[in-house]
Formats: sequence, C-alpha cells, structure tokens
Amino acid sequence: MTPLAVVAVGGNALTASDQAGSWTEIEANAGDMAACLSDLVTAGWRVAVVHGNGPQVGNLAIQQEEAVALVPAQPLHQLCAMTQGQLGSVLVRAIDQHCGAGRAVAVLTHVGVDPDDPAFSAPTKPIGPFFDEERAGELARERGWQVVEDSGRGYRRVVPSPIPSTVVEMDAIRVLLDAGHVVLAAGGGGVAVRLGDDGALTGVDAVIDKDYAAAAVAAAVGASDLYLVTGVDCVLLDYGTPRERPAHRLTPEEAQELFRQGQFPPGSMGPKITAALRFLQDGGQRVIITSAKLLRAAAAGEPGAGTCIERTPATVGSRS
Amino acid sequence: MTPLAVVAVGGNALTASDQAGSWTEIEANAGDMAACLSDLVTAGWRVAVVHGNGPQVGNLAIQQEEAVALVPAQPLHQLCAMTQGQLGSVLVRAIDQHCGAGRAVAVLTHVGVDPDDPAFSAPTKPIGPFFDEERAGELARERGWQVVEDSGRGYRRVVPSPIPSTVVEMDAIRVLLDAGHVVLAAGGGGVAVRLGDDGALTGVDAVIDKDYAAAAVAAAVGASDLYLVTGVDCVLLDYGTPRERPAHRLTPEEAQELFRQGQFPPGSMGPKITAALRFLQDGGQRVIITSAKLLRAAAAGEPGAGTCIERTPATVGSRS
Repeated sequence: MTPLAVVAVGGNALTASDQAGSWTEIEANAGDMAACLSDLVTAGWRVAVVHGNGPQVGNLAIQQEEAVALVPAQPLHQLCAMTQGQLGSVLVRAIDQHCGAGRAVAVLTHVGVDPDDPAFSAPTKPIGPFFDEERAGELARERGWQVVEDSGRGYRRVVPSPIPSTVVEMDAIRVLLDAGHVVLAAGGGGVAVRLGDDGALTGVDAVIDKDYAAAAVAAAVGASDLYLVTGVDCVLLDYGTPRERPAHRLTPEEAQELFRQGQFPPGSMGPKITAALRFLQDGGQRVIITSAKLLRAAAAGEPGAGTCIERTPATVGSRS
Repeated sequence: MTPLAVVAVGGNALTASDQAGSWTEIEANAGDMAACLSDLVTAGWRVAVVHGNGPQVGNLAIQQEEAVALVPAQPLHQLCAMTQGQLGSVLVRAIDQHCGAGRAVAVLTHVGVDPDDPAFSAPTKPIGPFFDEERAGELARERGWQVVEDSGRGYRRVVPSPIPSTVVEMDAIRVLLDAGHVVLAAGGGGVAVRLGDDGALTGVDAVIDKDYAAAAVAAAVGASDLYLVTGVDCVLLDYGTPRERPAHRLTPEEAQELFRQGQFPPGSMGPKITAALRFLQDGGQRVIITSAKLLRAAAAGEPGAGTCIERTPATVGSRS
C-alpha cells in the first residue's frame, strides 16, 4: 500500500484576503492549489484533502441575510454543507485535470462534536456580515445568535469552534483512498453534528477548525503524514524579533515546550501546532507545516523545505 | 452480491410546492423520504439515491441575485454543486438515523454532457427569480443569459437541460455501493460539465433532469432496478378522461407504443418514460414508477403497487 497523507489547505487559498470571491478567482486559485496537490499524487502518495471555507461561508451568509424577505435563510450547518459542495466541485475539477477524470472525489463529511465542549459556552469564531447594533440585537433575539462587536466595523455573529471528536464518513473515505482516489473530505472542517443515543445526527451551528478536522481525518483513516499548508514556508521562532529564525525540524516534545513558552500565537500558528501534536499523539508519524509551493519538496524530506515535526520513541500515544 | 437499485426522488419531495423551503420543512420532508428509502435498505437492497434540486437551486439563485451588490454571484454549475452539499447533508443525516451513522454517503457528482446537445441551442428549463423586462434585458446582456417571459409573472432565465452522457465519479460510486454504503449521487442531476480533450472538466450552466441522471447512474453502476419516485402511485393511461385507468405492468415495447400515441405529456410522465426506456436499452432489468409510500411494496413485486416496466427478450440493447 502506498503511503497516505492528509493535506489541509485554508479557505484563503481559494479566495485571497484581497479578493471578492468571484468564480474566476476561486477557479484560478484552485488550479494553482491542484498543481501542488497533484505533485504529491504523482510522487506516489495516497492523498486526502481538507479545505477551509472561511471567506466562502461568510459570503454565503451575506447572501442568505440579504434575501431573507424573499427566501428563508438556512442554518449555518447547511451553509457549511453548501460550501463543501461548492469548493469540493472546483477542487475535484482542478485535480482531475492533472490526475484524470474521476480520480478526485469529494465526500460530503459530517464531523461529530461533544455537546459539552467548552467552545459552546464561549463562541469565538466570527462569521458572515457586519450588522449595526440594532439589527444585531434583533437577530440575537430572533434567532438566538450570539453577536459581538468586531474590530470597530460593527457587530458580527460569533459561533463556537469545538474540537472534532468523530468523522462520521470515515469508512467511506478510507474505502475511496484504498481504491486509489484523491479524496476531498471534511471541507470547511466538516458539517458539525451532535450524535444522539438514538442514532440522530443533529446539525450544530459551529465552524470546526480545518486543521483540527484534518488531524481527525488523518487519525481516522490511519494516515502516516499530515500536511498543514499555510502562507509561510515554515514555522518561525521568535517571530517579528531580531532573533527570528526558521525551525525546520522539531520533535513533538520540542514543539510542546515552545508552545508553552508562547512561541505560537492563538490566531495563527497556535492551532496548527495543537493539531499537529494531537495527530502525533493519535499515532501519526510526521506533520509538515509549509507553503503550497514547497509541499512536494517537504514531503520528499528535502532539507530546509518546510517544518517537519516527527514522532520520536518518547512521543506519548499510539494508534490502537 | 445483494441486488442494486437506483432511486430518483424529486426536489419537490424535499420542498413541496406550497412551502417556502425553510430548514424545518426540508428536514421534516427528508425524514419522511428517508423512512421509505431505509425500507428498501432493510429489505436487502444496495441503494443509490439521485435527488432533484428544482426548488432549492431556485431559492439559492434568488439569494445570489439579491446580494449581488455585496457578493459576487456564483455561476449556475456552482449553485448545483452547493445544492448537492445542502440536500446531500440533510438526506445523509435522515438515512443514517434509520441505517446507522456513516452508512449513507453523499458523493459530489459531475455529469458529462455533449456540447453539441440540441438542448444548448434551445434552453427550456426556467430557474431562479422572476425579473421585470428591463432587468431581464440587462442580465441577458451582462451575463449572456437567455431569458423568456414565463406564465405572465415576469421574465426568467432559461437554461439548457441536456442529456447526460457520462457520470464522472462512477467508479467511486460503485466502490462505495460494493462496500455496503447507501450512496447519494448526482444530486440535482449532477454538476453539468463538458469533458475537454486535455482532461479539463469545464462547468456548464445547465440543469440535467434528475430522472435522466438517475438512469445514467443506474446504467453506469450496473444496477438491475431503477425506481422513479413521483407524486402518483402509478402510471395512469388516458389521464383525466372517463377512460382513465392504472397501468401496473408494461413491457418496454408497450411503453414505447403508448409514448408514440401521446399518452405521456412532456412536462410530467414523458421524461420518466424516456428515462425508463433509456435504462432498459442500456441493459437494465426493471423500472418502477411509484410514490414514496409504495416504494417497498413495488420493489417486492406486490401486485397493484406502482407501475413496473420490465425488460423482455425482445428489448433492444444490452449491457456490454
């Protein structure tokens, strides 16, 4: 069996922060990303891809609210499902152009979360449009939204970002990977659901971090490698200081210690390191944090390409 | 191997014609449909489900147009991909409640169409909002839309409804069916694409009939049976006349002859009969046209449940 990697790419890789999110932009960005992903496939990896959906689900939420007098707005978990269709389609088509029609497959993925996750009592993730104070108050009353003032530009809805516990479609994803498909899974972090005792999968209005979702998918399908693709070529220590320097190789224990020292800020590298450590504790072998253009070189172990965090005999946790 | 059926259900089964399309409505309707589908699964069938998306893609198109000053509207093929995510998610969750978490899987499906299909020079399928004449003219100029006056209520965009030629994800769908999954495939008729010589899958702004798409999926995965679920319990001959009577069993040759006699109008039973004959000519064994509530009885061959069109030794065409 060929080696198996899960690759996480941000929603910003499909709609850059200075773009409006038009089809032309998304299609061109997906083409660039697919070229890097197909390099991995050509190099002999089985590959699952987990994409983010931040800009796209934000746009969809605006469209839902603008038309609310004419068409009922769908709940957030449905918007997450819609962006899985939207971005899954553009990525499948872009990857198929390199790897052959039918090779890439997007599996609509639901991800279980714990209803007691502390994220539910402290929602932190802002999504969708800005509202003025009055309308924000109305929406909070009418729909039970939590809203907060955001960066001086108005009020936004905030939603919980809980930790993923289970990948509902894990068997289907594994079956497709084993059959040689490039699988798009848990797009946008997956559709968040609560698993009831009666078998019910109840949609939850939450947005799961795509790096955490990728770590959960990677552990569930037994991947050896997890690649977290980001805007920088590698992890930088003492970022923004005269002592700034790249970290190309870290043990999980070193990464944990640097995390404790406050080297990885919550809004940027912090969640990636947490996702990385979680995957390694779940039995993963290797996590690579790098940019799309260095993905293949980093996967091939070229020195100086990306940051590699590799399991050591001392790493706690294993795969059952 | 257990027998394999493809079931086509209309978008109206998820949003009835007198409903606005709220989440509550869609979820309740999906629950009713899932109970009927899970009856088939329990009875020992491998099942793939193809759902329509008419009301839902119409709503999404309205939302896109209402917000166009704030957010770029996505092309129709992307809206079709979004409704596959949306309706795939609600159906997966509803089926899993009966069959177990992870049993149902929605595969985002692209369906190839022939660029020379006559449907492209004569678009017939109205989608999305009504516009006044001036705005319709603007949209026609700006976006290359074809618009027509529709039922005295204003102008609407019309799109081609071409015949499906290939199911891009057919291998993945088959692999999942063989692994015992209930597969949601080609939702909304699939995302229509043109297959280029260079391997490119170019999105096409078209809406493929879901019964034709189901016939194509059924032939591609080698299903024996195709079930076309509709609002009536069975096919009626001489509909609306004093001679109206049910047709419970037809040979393909009889159905073809009745079609020639004008028994099946273009907007309702006509496409279903055409899809049925196409599937039987592609090697299918049996087509059942019935309501959701009679699905299981019809599948079990109970007399008087639904209309069964079964292959005979005289039926032209076979599976290669």
